[in-house]
Amino acid sequence: MTTPAVRPQLQSPTDLQSNAVRDIPAALRALLADVFALYVKTKNFHWHMSGHHFRDYHLLLDEQSEQIFAMTDDIAERARKIGGTTIRSIGHIKREQRLLDNDGEFVTPQDMLAELRSDNQQLTSEMRRVHELCDQCGDVATASVLENWIDQTERRIWFLYKTGRPG
Amino acid sequence: MTTPAVRPQLQSPTDLQSNAVRDIPAALRALLADVFALYVKTKNFHWHMSGHHFRDYHLLLDEQSEQIFAMTDDIAERARKIGGTTIRSIGHIKREQRLLDNDGEFVTPQDMLAELRSDNQQLTSEMRRVHELCDQCGDVATASVLENWIDQTERRIWFLYKTGRPG
Amino acid sequence: MTTPAVRPQLQSPTDLQSNAVRDIPAALRALLADVFALYVKTKNFHWHMSGHHFRDYHLLLDEQSEQIFAMTDDIAERARKIGGTTIRSIGHIKREQRLLDNDGEFVTPQDMLAELRSDNQQLTSEMRRVHELCDQCGDVATASVLENWIDQTERRIWFLYKTGRPG
Amino acid sequence: MTTPAVRPQLQSPTDLQSNAVRDIPAALRALLADVFALYVKTKNFHWHMSGHHFRDYHLLLDEQSEQIFAMTDDIAERARKIGGTTIRSIGHIKREQRLLDNDGEFVTPQDMLAELRSDNQQLTSEMRRVHELCDQCGDVATASVLENWIDQTERRIWFLYKTGRPG
Amino acid sequence: MTTPAVRPQLQSPTDLQSNAVRDIPAALRALLADVFALYVKTKNFHWHMSGHHFRDYHLLLDEQSEQIFAMTDDIAERARKIGGTTIRSIGHIKREQRLLDNDGEFVTPQDMLAELRSDNQQLTSEMRRVHELCDQCGDVATASVLENWIDQTERRIWFLYKTGRPG
Amino acid sequence: MTTPAVRPQLQSPTDLQSNAVRDIPAALRALLADVFALYVKTKNFHWHMSGHHFRDYHLLLDEQSEQIFAMTDDIAERARKIGGTTIRSIGHIKREQRLLDNDGEFVTPQDMLAELRSDNQQLTSEMRRVHELCDQCGDVATASVLENWIDQTERRIWFLYKTGRPG
Amino acid sequence: MTTPAVRPQLQSPTDLQSNAVRDIPAALRALLADVFALYVKTKNFHWHMSGHHFRDYHLLLDEQSEQIFAMTDDIAERARKIGGTTIRSIGHIKREQRLLDNDGEFVTPQDMLAELRSDNQQLTSEMRRVHELCDQCGDVATASVLENWIDQTERRIWFLYKTGRPG
Amino acid sequence: MTTPAVRPQLQSPTDLQSNAVRDIPAALRALLADVFALYVKTKNFHWHMSGHHFRDYHLLLDEQSEQIFAMTDDIAERARKIGGTTIRSIGHIKREQRLLDNDGEFVTPQDMLAELRSDNQQLTSEMRRVHELCDQCGDVATASVLENWIDQTERRIWFLYKTGRPG
Amino acid sequence: MTTPAVRPQLQSPTDLQSNAVRDIPAALRALLADVFALYVKTKNFHWHMSGHHFRDYHLLLDEQSEQIFAMTDDIAERARKIGGTTIRSIGHIKREQRLLDNDGEFVTPQDMLAELRSDNQQLTSEMRRVHELCDQCGDVATASVLENWIDQTERRIWFLYKTGRPG
Amino acid sequence: MTTPAVRPQLQSPTDLQSNAVRDIPAALRALLADVFALYVKTKNFHWHMSGHHFRDYHLLLDEQSEQIFAMTDDIAERARKIGGTTIRSIGHIKREQRLLDNDGEFVTPQDMLAELRSDNQQLTSEMRRVHELCDQCGDVATASVLENWIDQTERRIWFLYKTGRPG
Amino acid sequence: MTTPAVRPQLQSPTDLQSNAVRDIPAALRALLADVFALYVKTKNFHWHMSGHHFRDYHLLLDEQSEQIFAMTDDIAERARKIGGTTIRSIGHIKREQRLLDNDGEFVTPQDMLAELRSDNQQLTSEMRRVHELCDQCGDVATASVLENWIDQTERRIWFLYKTGRPG
Amino acid sequence: MTTPAVRPQLQSPTDLQSNAVRDIPAALRALLADVFALYVKTKNFHWHMSGHHFRDYHLLLDEQSEQIFAMTDDIAERARKIGGTTIRSIGHIKREQRLLDNDGEFVTPQDMLAELRSDNQQLTSEMRRVHELCDQCGDVATASVLENWIDQTERRIWFLYKTGRPG
Repeated sequence: MTTPAVRPQLQSPTDLQSNAVRDIPAALRALLADVFALYVKTKNFHWHMSGHHFRDYHLLLDEQSEQIFAMTDDIAERARKIGGTTIRSIGHIKREQRLLDNDGEFVTPQDMLAELRSDNQQLTSEMRRVHELCDQCGDVATASVLENWIDQTERRIWFLYKTGRPG
Repeated sequence: MTTPAVRPQLQSPTDLQSNAVRDIPAALRALLADVFALYVKTKNFHWHMSGHHFRDYHLLLDEQSEQIFAMTDDIAERARKIGGTTIRSIGHIKREQRLLDNDGEFVTPQDMLAELRSDNQQLTSEMRRVHELCDQCGDVATASVLENWIDQTERRIWFLYKTGRPG
Repeated sequence: MTTPAVRPQLQSPTDLQSNAVRDIPAALRALLADVFALYVKTKNFHWHMSGHHFRDYHLLLDEQSEQIFAMTDDIAERARKIGGTTIRSIGHIKREQRLLDNDGEFVTPQDMLAELRSDNQQLTSEMRRVHELCDQCGDVATASVLENWIDQTERRIWFLYKTGRPG
Repeated sequence: MTTPAVRPQLQSPTDLQSNAVRDIPAALRALLADVFALYVKTKNFHWHMSGHHFRDYHLLLDEQSEQIFAMTDDIAERARKIGGTTIRSIGHIKREQRLLDNDGEFVTPQDMLAELRSDNQQLTSEMRRVHELCDQCGDVATASVLENWIDQTERRIWFLYKTGRPG
Repeated sequence: MTTPAVRPQLQSPTDLQSNAVRDIPAALRALLADVFALYVKTKNFHWHMSGHHFRDYHLLLDEQSEQIFAMTDDIAERARKIGGTTIRSIGHIKREQRLLDNDGEFVTPQDMLAELRSDNQQLTSEMRRVHELCDQCGDVATASVLENWIDQTERRIWFLYKTGRPG
Repeated sequence: MTTPAVRPQLQSPTDLQSNAVRDIPAALRALLADVFALYVKTKNFHWHMSGHHFRDYHLLLDEQSEQIFAMTDDIAERARKIGGTTIRSIGHIKREQRLLDNDGEFVTPQDMLAELRSDNQQLTSEMRRVHELCDQCGDVATASVLENWIDQTERRIWFLYKTGRPG
Repeated sequence: MTTPAVRPQLQSPTDLQSNAVRDIPAALRALLADVFALYVKTKNFHWHMSGHHFRDYHLLLDEQSEQIFAMTDDIAERARKIGGTTIRSIGHIKREQRLLDNDGEFVTPQDMLAELRSDNQQLTSEMRRVHELCDQCGDVATASVLENWIDQTERRIWFLYKTGRPG
Repeated sequence: MTTPAVRPQLQSPTDLQSNAVRDIPAALRALLADVFALYVKTKNFHWHMSGHHFRDYHLLLDEQSEQIFAMTDDIAERARKIGGTTIRSIGHIKREQRLLDNDGEFVTPQDMLAELRSDNQQLTSEMRRVHELCDQCGDVATASVLENWIDQTERRIWFLYKTGRPG
Repeated sequence: MTTPAVRPQLQSPTDLQSNAVRDIPAALRALLADVFALYVKTKNFHWHMSGHHFRDYHLLLDEQSEQIFAMTDDIAERARKIGGTTIRSIGHIKREQRLLDNDGEFVTPQDMLAELRSDNQQLTSEMRRVHELCDQCGDVATASVLENWIDQTERRIWFLYKTGRPG
Repeated sequence: MTTPAVRPQLQSPTDLQSNAVRDIPAALRALLADVFALYVKTKNFHWHMSGHHFRDYHLLLDEQSEQIFAMTDDIAERARKIGGTTIRSIGHIKREQRLLDNDGEFVTPQDMLAELRSDNQQLTSEMRRVHELCDQCGDVATASVLENWIDQTERRIWFLYKTGRPG
Repeated sequence: MTTPAVRPQLQSPTDLQSNAVRDIPAALRALLADVFALYVKTKNFHWHMSGHHFRDYHLLLDEQSEQIFAMTDDIAERARKIGGTTIRSIGHIKREQRLLDNDGEFVTPQDMLAELRSDNQQLTSEMRRVHELCDQCGDVATASVLENWIDQTERRIWFLYKTGRPG
Repeated sequence: MTTPAVRPQLQSPTDLQSNAVRDIPAALRALLADVFALYVKTKNFHWHMSGHHFRDYHLLLDEQSEQIFAMTDDIAERARKIGGTTIRSIGHIKREQRLLDNDGEFVTPQDMLAELRSDNQQLTSEMRRVHELCDQCGDVATASVLENWIDQTERRIWFLYKTGRPG
């Protein structure tokens, strides 16, 4: 995770300290890459779902993908508001993302649910780490929006975990 | 653009001929990759815009990105409805996309508008090619939705072209 | 499929040729009979559904029945707009419909899904045939609305097919 | 009006007595057939209306057909809620309906209004009979929804009667 | 079920006879206790659901709990409108409720559905009894709202019964 | 309360017996006169309210007047639907109304509340009488709408009674 | 049109001169009586309409009655805002109204339209007179709301006049 | 119908061939002139309508004028999107329009309906001609929007034709 | 500006004097012609805008054109309500309009803004003149609606003037 | 109340005479200062209300403050539309306002209502004065909006006066 | 407050430490019991309110009860998202609740307000304690939702305290 | 920044310590003064904007002023909820505000943007200071709402900074 110096034309005035302006956008950039990757994977499984639970799981992943997508613009704009830069392209996402792609030709419904649960767990941990960084830097605004996203991610995990196991 | 045989579990019954089921999803898959790439680039420029026209162009690209994003689910589901598969991951998009990424640290507003106009022109050509393919295969439903997207893309070109030149 | 001469009081002026005014309303009339028959069968299965997936499939068939019903007025009015007549009664539907009724006392959920998938496949073929007829007659307006209905029918088939098979 | 024994898979537990579970669904089934038949006839006249009052009567019958159609799902579900079965197909409607079809090539506007008024009168009588049956069986919920439908039907009769006579 | 004399400050003028003012509020008070108890149990099962049908049943019980909760204020206000008193506390509910609590650590999804179905059946019977009481006392307004609630309760029973058994 | 024979031009076909067509509209006509009189009195007090509770009571009477006014069209149309006539003018209301006008120059807030409570009590009794009449005549539709109005009137009495006495 | 002195409890402070406070509420009171009388007559004709144009005229008079009714609260409150009193009862309306009641058993549609047109013309004249009075007294707020009501009344006249004559 | 060369400042980049860029905007320009002329004529007849059907026909022509007006911006923007120019003034419309004005002092309702029907028929033919031109040029987006407008125009003809003749 | 005598069939009863019925519709007719001419010119410039401010000015003129268009029906109906006639065709507009067309092949953005500002100034003067005429004739309803339009026109001038000059 | 010459950059073209452009904005500027002062005082009392009527009066002042605030932008823009300037800062408001601040530590509810009533009365007088000025200058648009605000202010006075006195 | 070990079937994966998963759900469970108890008490007082302020306080407690009820599902789901269990029945609430029931036959309005204020104060303290616990455990999502609820509870206290004392 | 002792009548019970009740309302009072001052300045610049970007910047400042205004009531009520007092008048704002007024006759657009950016930066610092104070006092509710306002203020700075510099 490298953090190039921001060009003067792209800076924005802030009263946060310089390490905050350097580290928080870098952390948000990696987080945004993960969120985009998770979005595409969730849609992948939404599109390629099969089996007797087709409609139920198809809708479940659609709702989750909408919730995941709704984070993207806010993550990017938080970085910009404090003078950092953010994701620029598909290739940039590919280089920054930590969640793994799954290009498998066929994935069973249960494997889909298990993999997404695991990815969302990893995302929770990453968001909790960024929250701590913001706390240390006094960036209370970024910390605050993360709290809502952690709550949503924990809800996605709960649904995926419960649905992925026999009653 | 390779088209692997679709696993039986992922097929869907259709009265289109087998070459249609092979070629149209493949063409839609590449188109979807381009549309995702254009979406991220349009957001990139939306986030990193600068200059006295900041708000005006920031909003212009936001509207265009919403319109571009709205295509993605429909493109993917058209392929699935006739029994083909579609995009599965960020890496898959990267391999299939024909529009180029732009990871430049700083891009002037005028260069942003010019590059997006050019990308949208390329997208129009690709969509017109898929439309011809659908015409030949009798896939009138895919052809019909493409007509609307071509109209929207031509509108984006008009706005980007006019805004990108002195009055 | 017989096409009686339309009474003068029921004609409407059009610039389409006389064979179009004769053949397209006849084709739409049979199509409307099929759509009504499929509507009642889909509701039948919606009402008599059973099993652990009860709510999920009950809702699926409700959504599909709404989409099917939404076609009926438009099909009838297309025929009237170009000067033809359309369906007049339950008995008229019964005589014109090509899809078969299912009055079975008890049908398993999987048989319900399979039968509806098959009926929708037949409907797609019929609609594609009417589309070709309109193309030959220059009735671009009827052709255009058919494109949307074919897309919807292919979506219903996809959902019914996927849900009707193990994952 | 025959009432076959309901298959165990289609029953639903109720505290109503067995004759209620046998007779009320049977009465509702015939009522639903009449309502479907009246719906299609009202649409028939809506589509084939003519004369200087075309738009006014076309809209009148459209409003009435929407009101009639809105009853269908509720009638069917009342039968299912107390453990009976309901209509299954176009052919089933045909066999159960007591209102007569009108397949006439041309019907004058005044004859249309008069026939629908008469059909709605017959429907009121049938609904009042089912209401008495429910009263006797203690099925207060079915009785209650019938009261609203009787009110609506009396309103349709008023409009059709007034419109069908000179001022 | 004891019915203390209502303090003068809490009375409301009515033309119903004194036994109606004594007995109907008492019956509504016990009914309200049952409805609150059923509400909390339905939410309990909504929160502690598990298994492959997790989302589907979670939503089913959420819809049912909303419908049950919507009755509470109306039941209480009916009693107050005719000059009686109603439920005052959690402890009051506990003492009046006739439906049993289920504090089991783990309940299987099928047991949840079966128990709720049984509770709703008991509720229907209680409501039908209150309806008879109102009929005898001439309290047509309370009788009328009960008819709608009985219909809703019969619908919940149908859904719970069908979902709780194999197809 | 006299009931002239209805002119043929104003009749509407109904399956109710002739005494129902004679007596129910007459009863509804007097009821409508009372409702209009109560409406104007409630607005009178709404307009001429005074004192520290001005806004609170001004709003209370506004809500009650809206609820009262909402009955008027439905009462009149019930009479017309079964072939009777209804109120024709301010003078007609004046002759038919049983509730008394209050043209006092100044009325204290507490007297306003007490008089309206008393009027609404009288209205409840009248409505209950009409309900019995409809029950005897088999006019279940009129009976049904009266049940809702009685409930609303009892609520208005409760509010007026409680507000009109010290805590 | 007598104007009793307003009780101190009912006054409201204003900077208008005393003759304005005396004359404008008196004029508005008579106007309100006319508007209520016209409202009931318009509803009378709406309820007792007949003939082939039944629905069209029934709707026309319904729209007009809604527009007329919407004036009532505003007229009354204008009087109260400047410290005057307003209408108190049905009997008060009867004594103040200048438009005549029509209690005829049967009125032809054309006579209904002609009479309402004439009444609305009289209303326009009355409103124009009140407007002049307000102009003289400097009550610009009352004058302003009258302008809108005159426009609406002229529109009602236009519709009634055109509809009431052969094309 | 002359087609001046488009000034460089007004061009827009497109992949359509030069004859398409020359001929389609010219055809759309004439079509837009016709649509504006039909809009003003429809409003003219809406404003100067008379007779017993006044409200019904007044509303009919209002709905049709709204539908006609809704086309104007889209026709103009289609031309601009592919780099052509469009209508600039009232005088420009006058020179390009092919439908004839009707400045008659008085037109009977039946003549109004007949003339509008005839104008809409002419418009259908013109639109069908532009559709063919677009087909030949590969301008699928313009062709697609024309299909919807042809459907609407055929509906307007149906209503005008039916309403303009005795039943 | 000539004012032909209105045919009897087109008159409407009014209490305004005959010179008002002659002069006000004539003045409104010319005003309506100007408003239509300004509408088309504003759309012309909206469609043919160019330069870096393209989107901003394109939207500005779109908002202004909507506001201008919203006046047209009200102007025409004011004339009809008091018994006058109004605009009948494109040619009629052309003959009555006082604002000049601009058919220039290319107009710079600054010239567009300046010309529209000047046209709106001329429109304000015309509307103020009609306002004075209405004041003299006692047509307070027309005067009142003009006040709102003058306010809107002054707002358009302000925006066009400010935007058309350097900061 | 001083009126500095407006800088050329801030003027806007108007056909009003120069004294109107000088005097009306000056009068509106002082009015706007009063409105802002009244807004803050109304919120002050809303925030610091106490006593048994707390919620009722808290809501009353909230509604009044919203109505007062809604005037501010319109007052300022009226001045700008005719080429004048308006309020620029809190200090500017302080210097221009004529209503007095009340910084009292504790104010009783009755004193709050009395003081606001008195302030609103003063505001009515000021608005009536500006209305006269506009009348003299021919600024009918400003006059028109004042009429609505005077009506609202008279309503606020009525409510405050009535609520502030015993019944 | 005992915390039984959660059955494996009811757990949910989380990265919080085991003491957090043990202590936070236990604290939320007791909080939920208090919130349910406060909800029923607030409704109790809403239903049994009396006195001249009846409507005002009836509405106040209705708003507060809605706000209190809106917390319940969120409290329960927070516990489930991190793998704990929550409330299961009325009896469970009774055992866990710390706020006291009030089953008094008659409570004066002032005593009602005072008791609810006191209960809400106790609730604030409990919520602040849970907030500290979440802070220590790193459960930022639960902490965040508590902040909003504390704000709402402090608002309820303010309203209840102010209303409960003389002005 | 002085903090007078709060009169007993204005206190509200809280579990925060006395220094919190003294210091937080004082800090919020000064913040509210700044927010009002910034609101009026932003509207000032919105009203007196000029230049080719007039509409774009006029809208930008309108959006920002709405966002700023939306804070005012919440800031004041936070102080009241914990028992402190808040702003009482324009003069009070003037004495407490730390942001400077700008009464300049003419300000260039670029200077407007720069000054607002600087003011918003100062506001961010003040809000961050209040946040720290709340953290120390355990007032988590005030801290939480500040986080959202800081995020919004950082966004306003970003927009103002970007727009205020060449691209």
